[in-house]
Amino acid sequence: METNVADMSIAELLEAKKHKELKQRIADANPIDIAEEFEKLSRGRQAVLFRSLPKDAAADVFAYLPAENKEELIELLTDPELGHIINDLFLDDAVDFIEEMPASVVKRVLENASDYTRKQINQLLQYEDDSAGSIMTTEYVDLKEGMTVGEAFARIRRVGMDKETIYTCYVTDKSRVLDGVVTVRTLLLADAANLVGSIMKTNLIYASTGDDREYVAELFQKYDLIALPVVDTEKHLVGIITVDDIMEVLEEENTEDFYKMAAIEPSDEPYLTSGVFGLAKKRIFWLSVLMISAVFTGSIITRYEQILAIFPALIAVIPMLMDTGGNAGSQSSTVIIRGMAVGELHLSDWLKILWKEIRVSALVGGILGAFNVTYRWFATSNFRLGMTVGFSLFATVILAQTLGCMLPLLAKLLRLDPALMAAPLVTTLVDASCLLVYFSIAEAIMH
Amino acid sequence: METNVADMSIAELLEAKKHKELKQRIADANPIDIAEEFEKLSRGRQAVLFRSLPKDAAADVFAYLPAENKEELIELLTDPELGHIINDLFLDDAVDFIEEMPASVVKRVLENASDYTRKQINQLLQYEDDSAGSIMTTEYVDLKEGMTVGEAFARIRRVGMDKETIYTCYVTDKSRVLDGVVTVRTLLLADAANLVGSIMKTNLIYASTGDDREYVAELFQKYDLIALPVVDTEKHLVGIITVDDIMEVLEEENTEDFYKMAAIEPSDEPYLTSGVFGLAKKRIFWLSVLMISAVFTGSIITRYEQILAIFPALIAVIPMLMDTGGNAGSQSSTVIIRGMAVGELHLSDWLKILWKEIRVSALVGGILGAFNVTYRWFATSNFRLGMTVGFSLFATVILAQTLGCMLPLLAKLLRLDPALMAAPLVTTLVDASCLLVYFSIAEAIMH
Repeated sequence: METNVADMSIAELLEAKKHKELKQRIADANPIDIAEEFEKLSRGRQAVLFRSLPKDAAADVFAYLPAENKEELIELLTDPELGHIINDLFLDDAVDFIEEMPASVVKRVLENASDYTRKQINQLLQYEDDSAGSIMTTEYVDLKEGMTVGEAFARIRRVGMDKETIYTCYVTDKSRVLDGVVTVRTLLLADAANLVGSIMKTNLIYASTGDDREYVAELFQKYDLIALPVVDTEKHLVGIITVDDIMEVLEEENTEDFYKMAAIEPSDEPYLTSGVFGLAKKRIFWLSVLMISAVFTGSIITRYEQILAIFPALIAVIPMLMDTGGNAGSQSSTVIIRGMAVGELHLSDWLKILWKEIRVSALVGGILGAFNVTYRWFATSNFRLGMTVGFSLFATVILAQTLGCMLPLLAKLLRLDPALMAAPLVTTLVDASCLLVYFSIAEAIMH
Repeated sequence: METNVADMSIAELLEAKKHKELKQRIADANPIDIAEEFEKLSRGRQAVLFRSLPKDAAADVFAYLPAENKEELIELLTDPELGHIINDLFLDDAVDFIEEMPASVVKRVLENASDYTRKQINQLLQYEDDSAGSIMTTEYVDLKEGMTVGEAFARIRRVGMDKETIYTCYVTDKSRVLDGVVTVRTLLLADAANLVGSIMKTNLIYASTGDDREYVAELFQKYDLIALPVVDTEKHLVGIITVDDIMEVLEEENTEDFYKMAAIEPSDEPYLTSGVFGLAKKRIFWLSVLMISAVFTGSIITRYEQILAIFPALIAVIPMLMDTGGNAGSQSSTVIIRGMAVGELHLSDWLKILWKEIRVSALVGGILGAFNVTYRWFATSNFRLGMTVGFSLFATVILAQTLGCMLPLLAKLLRLDPALMAAPLVTTLVDASCLLVYFSIAEAIMH
């Protein structure tokens, strides 16, 4: 019986009304694991479980619930319960939550928030999407230069409970201008009588509220940061960003790149809860653009109908040429796009990149071309056809990989997103040019 | 004059031999920024700059130098200088460094390391690539249950200087078995007389040395961790992993996925320093495989040469059909591959995904198909051709997107990497099937 209880999940303990064991289990559990249990429960049970959480754990668990569970749950909560949660949430989590909810829910949430919380949330909501301001929290520990290390620890103990991080403290002057940062590590290793001003670091790394969150993520990666201060245009400290939020930003930015590179408009919504029309809308724009471009590619074939009528064997080669060209081009464009995204390649490297791609593609194209000459010669006993295909493939791979590497660089030069110059667009452009090359070579060799 | 000096970079100060200003600048600067300056300097100057660094900053700067700069620099250093650096590096950085260097350099480095450092490095080098053990460090703060909070702080102050993080401390028993963790936040908020055992968290999140680093990264993302303990098979604490290393892991794993999805074998080497043969080798395998598959696609065309001879207008449509099919398929496969990579989609969702993709593709294919019927009818006054193309496109998009969503799921089922089932492979498969559909519809309608 005892072992049975130990093996039961939180959801199962709740079903079995083992309230004592449930309380114990919840006290030990991580809020994130508790949040996961909610998804397995009926709506009514969710409210029961939520109410059995210790007061100070409720907001932590709430922050990690999926949006639809949040919305369902707060319908069952009383106004004071709701007020308690919203005041207890970290402000950046509160803002994320508000942004996910429909207007009617937002109104009720804000009505039940304390004046202070409501003011802070409204302020954070004003920052543009994807800006540093939109992902920061205003809950940080601020110190003054004139404090001793002992006084600093006293302040951290007093206010630290509600702060997102206490390990980096921010030193500001009377008008809230950011003067320096000091870590708890430095404070711990310093003498209690030292002044904060004498041990703080003044060579600061910080972001402005309007900075793009991608740039902020780069700062975190470059400097291995745990937290970053955010200032307004007068260098007043207005908030901090912590590394856990940056991990989310990086995940979202990577997803955006994957989508763009597959010719899909990026979306914030999870796939499973997205509507069919919404998903179709994200796909059809680029599919139409690329389809219309491919119609032009088709018109090249029409121009060369005569030679195809005389040598129908040339037609069967078209898919292989187009596919290999598209794949070769997308290899190069992917390498360059990713290299630029992680800061390894820069526009100024264009000549080195081009020279390298020409050599790599000549090697790859040469091998594939030679294989084709040999194979088709043996398979069809038609040496001219073999030569036509081999040379065309050689030229196609070189063309594809130089185009594939240059297009993302061109996009960067024009201040467009290099990720747009990925497989789909490169393929379409390579198709047209490789058919032109193919038919020209065919005319020269077969006639 | 003064403003001039203030505007000069570290490299420029060095060239101008402004030693006093240089020392001052270096004292204020971030090690990462100093490391960046090295790339602008000649080899001789690099040694000069490195020797003017304060003793305790040298290893920090060294850790952030690119591999080729490290190798050049240590050739110029004396054995004691080298010994100092290797002993001062964080162990995980030391291991990364050793792994990048040629064997002769490694030998010299290890000979100059202290016995302790050499032993630790050799131990860490034994863990398999991409395992938790290979990215961990053994520099953590360990506490005992019986210590008071005051004693814990005394220990942190004593040993904390050389630890990668002090903010999470690990509580072990006599035989180094991991019993709990306690954060500096908890310690700061507790009474000095409290016992560590009474305030530590025993509901632990940890990894084993053999766990895949991708799994470790998932734990960091799920639980918003700053550091994670790593244990051996007997639950002895052997190391910790910090969030800055995880950010690198995530970047590398994403790059790997981008490469795989573009049919390139992943590589650890930076593009600009990779050789032409090396780069070509990473590309040619998949290009060959896909090329040979495309030859089979071509043979489908050969089978239908007759109908193409009668209606040559059908040929010009092939690129548009193949491209649109490929693009549509890669849209679906990308969405599913990425959804699984970020843990949003699971194998068990397959029916929901399939049903959604059928509806989305029918909508998208319907619109694109209808456009083609209309356009070709007007452009060629050939209603039958318009109908053939329209229906083929409709069928192609549905086929492409259902194949595109199912193949990554199938890969997952077979315990293969879903990222292999991306654009290139999907395109090749879709090509063949869309041509079959196209010619069948053409025969039915045009005859």
